[in-house]
Amino acid sequence: METVIGVIGAGDAADDEYVTALETGREIARSKFTLLCGGMGGVMEAACKGAKSEGGLTVGIIPGESRKEANPYVDIPIVTGMGHGRNIIVARSCDAIIAIGGSFGTLSEIAFALRLGVPVVGINTWDVSTDIKKAENPRDAVEMAAGLVDARAARGMR
Amino acid sequence: METVIGVIGAGDAADDEYVTALETGREIARSKFTLLCGGMGGVMEAACKGAKSEGGLTVGIIPGESRKEANPYVDIPIVTGMGHGRNIIVARSCDAIIAIGGSFGTLSEIAFALRLGVPVVGINTWDVSTDIKKAENPRDAVEMAAGLVDARAARGMR
Amino acid sequence: METVIGVIGAGDAADDEYVTALETGREIARSKFTLLCGGMGGVMEAACKGAKSEGGLTVGIIPGESRKEANPYVDIPIVTGMGHGRNIIVARSCDAIIAIGGSFGTLSEIAFALRLGVPVVGINTWDVSTDIKKAENPRDAVEMAAGLVDARAARGMR
Amino acid sequence: METVIGVIGAGDAADDEYVTALETGREIARSKFTLLCGGMGGVMEAACKGAKSEGGLTVGIIPGESRKEANPYVDIPIVTGMGHGRNIIVARSCDAIIAIGGSFGTLSEIAFALRLGVPVVGINTWDVSTDIKKAENPRDAVEMAAGLVDARAARGMR
Repeated sequence: METVIGVIGAGDAADDEYVTALETGREIARSKFTLLCGGMGGVMEAACKGAKSEGGLTVGIIPGESRKEANPYVDIPIVTGMGHGRNIIVARSCDAIIAIGGSFGTLSEIAFALRLGVPVVGINTWDVSTDIKKAENPRDAVEMAAGLVDARAARGMR
Repeated sequence: METVIGVIGAGDAADDEYVTALETGREIARSKFTLLCGGMGGVMEAACKGAKSEGGLTVGIIPGESRKEANPYVDIPIVTGMGHGRNIIVARSCDAIIAIGGSFGTLSEIAFALRLGVPVVGINTWDVSTDIKKAENPRDAVEMAAGLVDARAARGMR
Repeated sequence: METVIGVIGAGDAADDEYVTALETGREIARSKFTLLCGGMGGVMEAACKGAKSEGGLTVGIIPGESRKEANPYVDIPIVTGMGHGRNIIVARSCDAIIAIGGSFGTLSEIAFALRLGVPVVGINTWDVSTDIKKAENPRDAVEMAAGLVDARAARGMR
Repeated sequence: METVIGVIGAGDAADDEYVTALETGREIARSKFTLLCGGMGGVMEAACKGAKSEGGLTVGIIPGESRKEANPYVDIPIVTGMGHGRNIIVARSCDAIIAIGGSFGTLSEIAFALRLGVPVVGINTWDVSTDIKKAENPRDAVEMAAGLVDARAARGMR
């Protein structure tokens, strides 16, 4: 079974968030993790693009009813037709999540992850809990996520 | 079509939250609104109990797979079998929402409501946006919710 | 808790199906049951219209993202935003279901009901199981549904 | 983007169905398609096992709340927590679906696929529509599925 790292954030990312997400995707692929995201634009597209540039595998949990809506860097689109209701599937399906900025949609995903016990690493994102581990940059974020996955596995929770 | 006011909050409410939710349910029923909630215990049960004590109608969006899980004051259980994934249905189905305290599950519902443009009134709840209107007590909260519903209707958004 | 009888069938019903659904809705309301359906047009609209004409209560499990999509005879719209994915919520939330004609969407609801053990009464509908009880007309269908609900209650399954 | 072929069927498959699903999974992997299924036992497990034996990639759309529920041959578990509600996600996410036997859960997936226009190939499965293309064996089934995917792509529907 693959280790799946999620990247969440705004669909209309600011330039610096796009660059951060791109590099985060690269780091995830370099670490041989599978990248999972909401499959759309902005942070999601950047992360997928970064992962593909390093030969990684990308999964997009699409809100709409067609795989055509996925950004062009998604390898495997999961087509939910649930709109924002798909956010909980993003949260549930990851071994750890990296949140980059984001608005209320991202906040819903963070809330679900915290509720479900999925580790969250944040880069300039919502500050709603001390359970969100703060990272300074993509490399740190992926390292921290990897560490949190290992810690859960050691406790038999994965 | 009924005007539907949601009440969201913890399933294991503190005593003061339970009392606040009970009175909020009463006020909703006195105002001839239908009460909608997550259908379980704590704040949800208290709100339903309050509404029934005033002859109101109560709807519970149940996370589990059986109507038997609903609290005893739910008139109409909607059985989703989606776990916390039902939270977005709670948010989508209300004309306005009153949040009382709450933890990460409640935060996910607030985030969805803010994302979807559903008005939120808060009593001692998450402070993640100025779009959450703060109320001091149940009576104020229901009055504020009613005003927000009227304002949306006047803009043709209901 | 209300006894909830579902009516399922095509959104673009033939004239005879519309009349059958209208009368089925009337019978459900006369029997003091709550009517639940998919909230849209055709058989769903006819059933709601019939129930309202007899002072009944109607619930619509809406596929789209807005309560405005509900037919005008829905009292309580449950807004799922899940498209046809809401069909399982229709099936799960009923004490018994009456299927009138219908195409593949209706077939998915029948399949879920049979899978979940929800009694199904059919009027000129899919013939995929002997577990679907055949009724000749609306009055018989509602009587049969009521009997199936009572039988389940007697076995503690409700 | 990967071409995704779904395999659906009973979670408690008969011996001959298990063998058929195993060989179907092998053929899917040999054809360089990604296999998607419901992630559980029986036909789903057999198909994943077959695909992995040929070096393929497998995705499981899990009904429960934990990736631990996935069968051991799932590479990427998508954890929905939606129970049978996940069936529509299985149907929506495939370029074509191969149904092997199956009971009411499988029937719901077939109904969704037919409703959504996703091609279905059947091996000894529900006979509810002439739109279900009948195959005699796994090799034929995968060839037929591949042909249907190509036909849709040629019409710009993929």
